[in-house]
Amino acid sequence: MINALTRTDDLMDFAEKLDAYQQRVEEVLDRWLPSDEIPPHKLHEAMRYSVLGGGKRLRPLLVYAAGEALGTPSELLDAPAIAIELMHAFSLVHDDLPAMDDDDLRRGRPTTHVAYDEATAILAADALQPLAFQVLTADPALLEHPASQVALVRLIAEACGSEGMTGGQAIDLASEGQRLEAAELEHMFRLKTGRLLRASILAPACCPPEPDQRGWQALDRFADRIGLAFQIRDDILDVEGETAVIGKQQGADIARNKATYPALFGMDTARARVDELLHGAMQELERFGQNADTLRQLARVIAERDH
Amino acid sequence: MINALTRTDDLMDFAEKLDAYQQRVEEVLDRWLPSDEIPPHKLHEAMRYSVLGGGKRLRPLLVYAAGEALGTPSELLDAPAIAIELMHAFSLVHDDLPAMDDDDLRRGRPTTHVAYDEATAILAADALQPLAFQVLTADPALLEHPASQVALVRLIAEACGSEGMTGGQAIDLASEGQRLEAAELEHMFRLKTGRLLRASILAPACCPPEPDQRGWQALDRFADRIGLAFQIRDDILDVEGETAVIGKQQGADIARNKATYPALFGMDTARARVDELLHGAMQELERFGQNADTLRQLARVIAERDH
Repeated sequence: MINALTRTDDLMDFAEKLDAYQQRVEEVLDRWLPSDEIPPHKLHEAMRYSVLGGGKRLRPLLVYAAGEALGTPSELLDAPAIAIELMHAFSLVHDDLPAMDDDDLRRGRPTTHVAYDEATAILAADALQPLAFQVLTADPALLEHPASQVALVRLIAEACGSEGMTGGQAIDLASEGQRLEAAELEHMFRLKTGRLLRASILAPACCPPEPDQRGWQALDRFADRIGLAFQIRDDILDVEGETAVIGKQQGADIARNKATYPALFGMDTARARVDELLHGAMQELERFGQNADTLRQLARVIAERDH
Repeated sequence: MINALTRTDDLMDFAEKLDAYQQRVEEVLDRWLPSDEIPPHKLHEAMRYSVLGGGKRLRPLLVYAAGEALGTPSELLDAPAIAIELMHAFSLVHDDLPAMDDDDLRRGRPTTHVAYDEATAILAADALQPLAFQVLTADPALLEHPASQVALVRLIAEACGSEGMTGGQAIDLASEGQRLEAAELEHMFRLKTGRLLRASILAPACCPPEPDQRGWQALDRFADRIGLAFQIRDDILDVEGETAVIGKQQGADIARNKATYPALFGMDTARARVDELLHGAMQELERFGQNADTLRQLARVIAERDH
């Protein structure tokens, strides 16, 4: 269980591995996104702008890292990794719209409705959703595994619907100016970001070799804790981060009077909760031994990141 | 090939069959749409409002009618029928938004963003998309047929993406105030409404017993002609229909200076084109004999409807 490498070597390996996965994600995204030389040109340009804008690709990284833990052949993971990133990009474009969070800046660049126009932003995101499901059902690597394709479509669709990501955004908007209880806030977090992070971690479990039930459950509990830690860390960064580092306006959630974890419970409680969740998440990975090392390090990145 | 019944009896049978299918669609939609007693309540209420607002259910009817032509067991068709209707409803809600067509009235009732608010309308429609894919992958009737499920997800996703319905809406918006050539206008029609109508007609061909290649191609050509006839008829109704009958503001497209078929080519040419398309469509159904009678009558309804 204890890695033989020193911590420094270990981190270098990890950084190289992340780079390689990120490069792979960019390449596969670029291949699946329609060229802006194909009509409708402006729509395709806006889709590419929305997706290829240099995100951290955290969700695809989680797909590959969880795949390492389960021993999933990595060529089976490109489709779910890219499908999940497309769904994530779709949600960001709509969340940024004037009728929603009304954000002008995302990843340090103008948001899609600012760079183009509102109608184009709505439609570009609308077209990213079906593209995600096209990728899952048309990627050659998965064609021999229709049951896995069905399981992946279902996992990702459930994660993005009204009892997942989109429902979480609706609760978030409705909570503006309201004081939520801890349980309500954590429920909103679980839907808004948690469900798609969970889908990223469980996607490899839909592919051969499928894990046993206990393996699935351990990953599911890991995903739950890490998803919550991610969102609380996000709220902490909203308070203390600098705009230049986090790539969006600092304090934006507070300015909108949105429910955030530090605002409700104080910074110390927020930090302690993240540590507790990270610790619990790590315990769930023990059964996967060294195979889960990348996943462990990603979990640490999520809980300790500064942007 | 010639039905033994008189035309009057025939039409009565047809009307009863349509009623029965429509009732079935309402029941299955009601079962799949989350109850508004489940949180987020307002979002679920808006989703139900957007879908259960009394549409004609033309696309589901086409699914069942094409299924009759192919001899598909009808219990396999509920999921694609409902999934396609959910995707159709999603597109209507977004098309009606202020940043798009800015319509206040749909099916004789306030549009979703008028009845609720813009953010809720955007999110309700966003949640209808994944629900469609959930239905396709979770409906018990299809669980034994994963290859059919994959084919259906792919068919419907492709029909709704940037080179389908959503792309058609983008071209439509971009065409405001422009004079399109006939070929450009028909291309836009093919994407905007044609691709999802085609998916409705080809959905049963994804299920057992799958048709041979020539059967698939005949249905595909039928779908192409009927899809185009539908949209040209829509444009004719926009000119001559009354608001009370068509359920939305008459002349709305002309007021927005949108490209329409009668505006570009005159009413006589538009009507002649619909007749020509209907005739061509009917020829494609010959190989299916009496089994395609419902599909034939639906085609006639599409080409000759007054709302």
